[in-house]
Amino acid sequence: MSITYPGGFRAAGVAAGLKSTGKPDVALVTNDGPLHNAAAVFTSNRVAAAPVLWSRQVVSDGRVDAVVLNSGGANACTGHEGFQNTHHTAEATADLLGVSATDVLVCSTGLIGEQLPMERLLAGVADAAGSLGRGGGPTAAEAIMTTDTVAKEARYPATADSASEGYSIGGMAKGAGMLAPGLATMLVVLTTDAALDAAALDAALREATRVSFDRTDADGCMSTNDTVVLLASGAAGIAPDQAQFTAALTEVCLDLAAQLIHDAEGASHTIAVTTLNAASERDAEVVSRAVARSNLFKTAIFGNDPNWGRVLAAVGTTDAVFEPDRLNVSMNGVQICRNGGIGESRDLVDLTGHDVTVEIDLAAGTDAATIWTNDLTHEYVHENSAYSS
Amino acid sequence: MSITYPGGFRAAGVAAGLKSTGKPDVALVTNDGPLHNAAAVFTSNRVAAAPVLWSRQVVSDGRVDAVVLNSGGANACTGHEGFQNTHHTAEATADLLGVSATDVLVCSTGLIGEQLPMERLLAGVADAAGSLGRGGGPTAAEAIMTTDTVAKEARYPATADSASEGYSIGGMAKGAGMLAPGLATMLVVLTTDAALDAAALDAALREATRVSFDRTDADGCMSTNDTVVLLASGAAGIAPDQAQFTAALTEVCLDLAAQLIHDAEGASHTIAVTTLNAASERDAEVVSRAVARSNLFKTAIFGNDPNWGRVLAAVGTTDAVFEPDRLNVSMNGVQICRNGGIGESRDLVDLTGHDVTVEIDLAAGTDAATIWTNDLTHEYVHENSAYSS
Repeated sequence: MSITYPGGFRAAGVAAGLKSTGKPDVALVTNDGPLHNAAAVFTSNRVAAAPVLWSRQVVSDGRVDAVVLNSGGANACTGHEGFQNTHHTAEATADLLGVSATDVLVCSTGLIGEQLPMERLLAGVADAAGSLGRGGGPTAAEAIMTTDTVAKEARYPATADSASEGYSIGGMAKGAGMLAPGLATMLVVLTTDAALDAAALDAALREATRVSFDRTDADGCMSTNDTVVLLASGAAGIAPDQAQFTAALTEVCLDLAAQLIHDAEGASHTIAVTTLNAASERDAEVVSRAVARSNLFKTAIFGNDPNWGRVLAAVGTTDAVFEPDRLNVSMNGVQICRNGGIGESRDLVDLTGHDVTVEIDLAAGTDAATIWTNDLTHEYVHENSAYSS
Repeated sequence: MSITYPGGFRAAGVAAGLKSTGKPDVALVTNDGPLHNAAAVFTSNRVAAAPVLWSRQVVSDGRVDAVVLNSGGANACTGHEGFQNTHHTAEATADLLGVSATDVLVCSTGLIGEQLPMERLLAGVADAAGSLGRGGGPTAAEAIMTTDTVAKEARYPATADSASEGYSIGGMAKGAGMLAPGLATMLVVLTTDAALDAAALDAALREATRVSFDRTDADGCMSTNDTVVLLASGAAGIAPDQAQFTAALTEVCLDLAAQLIHDAEGASHTIAVTTLNAASERDAEVVSRAVARSNLFKTAIFGNDPNWGRVLAAVGTTDAVFEPDRLNVSMNGVQICRNGGIGESRDLVDLTGHDVTVEIDLAAGTDAATIWTNDLTHEYVHENSAYSS
């Protein structure tokens, strides 16, 4: 179920006292090979955290031996001292594992603008290195949680009985896109025992994240720390077909993305906004995202109100190809807006369940895309106004 | 204080039963000349309401004799029938006033996706035409309110004792940018007794709205009905200098914009986000807007939390010219972020008052711009989740 499901990986999660709750807060993942190939994608935020600046360099040669992660502090906007702290963490980890610091990826999550308590962090890293094991995945997933209410893990094949191609993929994630308080970051570690080189991993990872995490938009806020890393050990001795591997990796990423949105802070509805019959996939994504980012739409869903006027108002802000009088909108299968005007009765739409589907028909082509989001609730306002004070 | 302050204008506001509360909901403004020059700006939302489609045509020749406005229904996404209803309203108004329907501007505000109750509306228009008077401005301002808690009016010169150039400007407004529930629209009517032709009015209006209403961003949601119209009667017999008139008009627009944000739904803080030392005015506006639209920033301010990390995370999403390690951020005068890192103590920032100033120094040039917004509160979620259900 976890990142230690594929062969060649060990992991650990320990409590180092970074979190005031005393829960696990330092995780370590090692790739024991035989291969040590890796790829990663990072936040496009220009205010990037120290561990992101460091890790971009680490992964640039396609080799990663270990990933060290901490919750309880983002190490973002912490200047030269913050970068030195990341460097120091990588070196300490490398010394413990007998690898090079330049092959140790670092991820941090928590409040922006505070220095990490290095003494406690380094003691935790030593503790984690001593606890590494083939069964350590679940504890590692727990150690990267911030306000997540459950740990998020996924695997391929999905069950022990599922058909596979002789290799496996494991994954863990934390956060809820950019929704978590303090911009507390989405961190994802993916592992596979397939034998793929860094370029193949990079291509598969970019395609898988494009249609999964990149389409998960909880509150439109981009983190300074987002990192998704994919490690390949080659322990299965299988070199899979690139397209098949990409599809399997995408499946794992979609599973983790769904778990993130489902656990989004304060959310009472998970909303899939799908745009259909668009002139391009880009148009479909732009329209779905505009709706998913509308606070008025999101508060209406919180109120179980099928307010399609707020959907059309958001669609109208985009440059996608459409004619206003040809737009159709359905919520949970009821077409409440037809040809840009009044369709079926709002009263037919039941929004009391957790899952909501919104379908916007642009009548302009054949492409489609879905953005996953959640509603805007009192709980969201409460958690995000009370976080750091 | 109102739109009837300048010479040449009469107005009225009446209760026609469009609002369930029985409060005034139909307003009428007439320009008795001698000039009947006008300019207007409208929402750029591609899903535009019927009255916007109609009024764009009306103002295209630079002449407007009357403006008829209703609350209690936006007449947006109402198809052919909705457009016919707007046309019918203009014709009925024109007949009552003895003018041409093509010189009658129409504005509507309220819920999207419902037809207006035409019988009540037309009875209200007749009632308003019979009630027109030189003292009618305040009642007209009341009749366009939706969830506004106070009517918004402004004038130039600001007081009877202020220096002026021999002419005056009056204005009324409703809504709070795009924040009002149901996207209930910003409507603004401005009047002047100065003698200016339509082209001069248009140039002055575009410049004044660019730095006032266009920089008022309550919740990032663009309405289907926004309209700002400026009418000139020439009754003062004064042809002012264009630059002086633009400055006076901008002053009135800034006054109304400040009133809109101050009355924004559910807001507990009014926030001025100013970006300084930008490479261009456009950069400054883009950065201020990115911060003003960050839900995480807005919830932090609601919690009286000077969370500058959320400011930097929003700045980092823009393409403005800056170096992350040269950014400074001050809140209410305390520089809590210096050179992209930790500055003065957060504890020095007092956010308990209603007004909050955020200053972002890009250290990249000499330009500046302010966006006015408000915090994201429980009241906002409550009012917007409960509006139409």
